[in-house]
Amino acid sequence: MSRILPREDEPGSLSGADEAKLIRWAVMKSYRKELWFEVPTRRAFINITPQVEACLKESGVREGLVLVNAMHITASVFINDDERGLHQDYEKWLEALAPHEPTSQYQHNRTGEDNADAHMKRQIMGREVVVAVTAGKLDFGPWEQIFYGEFDGRRRKRALVKIVGE
Amino acid sequence: MSRILPREDEPGSLSGADEAKLIRWAVMKSYRKELWFEVPTRRAFINITPQVEACLKESGVREGLVLVNAMHITASVFINDDERGLHQDYEKWLEALAPHEPTSQYQHNRTGEDNADAHMKRQIMGREVVVAVTAGKLDFGPWEQIFYGEFDGRRRKRALVKIVGE
Amino acid sequence: MSRILPREDEPGSLSGADEAKLIRWAVMKSYRKELWFEVPTRRAFINITPQVEACLKESGVREGLVLVNAMHITASVFINDDERGLHQDYEKWLEALAPHEPTSQYQHNRTGEDNADAHMKRQIMGREVVVAVTAGKLDFGPWEQIFYGEFDGRRRKRALVKIVGE
Repeated sequence: MSRILPREDEPGSLSGADEAKLIRWAVMKSYRKELWFEVPTRRAFINITPQVEACLKESGVREGLVLVNAMHITASVFINDDERGLHQDYEKWLEALAPHEPTSQYQHNRTGEDNADAHMKRQIMGREVVVAVTAGKLDFGPWEQIFYGEFDGRRRKRALVKIVGE
Repeated sequence: MSRILPREDEPGSLSGADEAKLIRWAVMKSYRKELWFEVPTRRAFINITPQVEACLKESGVREGLVLVNAMHITASVFINDDERGLHQDYEKWLEALAPHEPTSQYQHNRTGEDNADAHMKRQIMGREVVVAVTAGKLDFGPWEQIFYGEFDGRRRKRALVKIVGE
Repeated sequence: MSRILPREDEPGSLSGADEAKLIRWAVMKSYRKELWFEVPTRRAFINITPQVEACLKESGVREGLVLVNAMHITASVFINDDERGLHQDYEKWLEALAPHEPTSQYQHNRTGEDNADAHMKRQIMGREVVVAVTAGKLDFGPWEQIFYGEFDGRRRKRALVKIVGE
């Protein structure tokens, strides 16, 4: 299944109306929105797929790419399953790979922070996702959902949605 | 080495033919294809670079970006070396970081699944890659190859190739 | 905060001059530059944000996406904090997750290499980042900085900056 827009193999067949349409097609659209969070706990996973879908609809983009990234370096945006047990597994697994305690084990925490582990957890889960837009929809497999992963919450933080396409 | 298309510093020099060309340049192309897999084992790494190159050729895109992502949440798309020994090292390393057994150690597996470890392995190896397209080619360093990483195989699954550019 | 360019809700109001502008808007720009490194040590983190900002300025792109990726499979490009203590923590943490020694523990090193661990460290830290371009700037949160992560240095290696937009 592939799709190329518009057909370029018949340039001679363009009427004036088609040309105008071609020009409109050609306009690269660009859309930007910040999603804000204030997670009451240190760590949490929040399904933001509905918000990203709303952004896409608002953008009017039919074909292109969506970038969703954490704007903070102790948070992630990632795609996985919306299943509570899995999220508990992630929490436990990330805590084993990069434990919060003892906070004194990290040089970074000598700056007065206690969030060095969050900088590590975020690298495993990733900063961003790039999602294809096809026919105006997030081009997803059956279980793909977008999550904001908070590893140092209890304050206002945000993710960026940037959509580029036509 | 940088390249900006087309030159905008001489807008006054456009003839009618140039203008038409400009309009054609302006058309943002969009291409989509699914790559299907049915890996007979639970885990495997498959080099999909030739398939992605075929997609790029078919798209006709000369300058832009290619997104290749797993459409399933227990699989990865990543870029690394096509070296059998390294793949054995990855297998062993990922199994140490997120062991399959005992399956009862994961909350997720209480849903009837046994693939919680696959959801973790995929986060380490990543969901997607974004590759530059320059002069109609994947803009790669000397050893870069694209792999589909299967962590819960023995069923039909797919990756998405989305190309956006001109 | 969202922005869609140009406004399409008033197509009837286009004068000839506006149409010409519309066509110019439509031109998708594409920019490419390689950043070269020769790190004297095996491992290092280098802040490349100023170089990427210079590329963006040179490209003239106002709205779009920047891809920055390692062109080598034993190096990373990632976004995190420019804090020396954190970088020491990353070094120690990555060495614990994928130790360099003993090099004989990796099949890959039987090819004559000693860098199998670098192929693993790079997967945790990631190959690439995709950054939004808004109003001609890298659309960053307060602490986001782009790093080249070297895990097998002491030779000339490079990263790619590809910018697509308008």
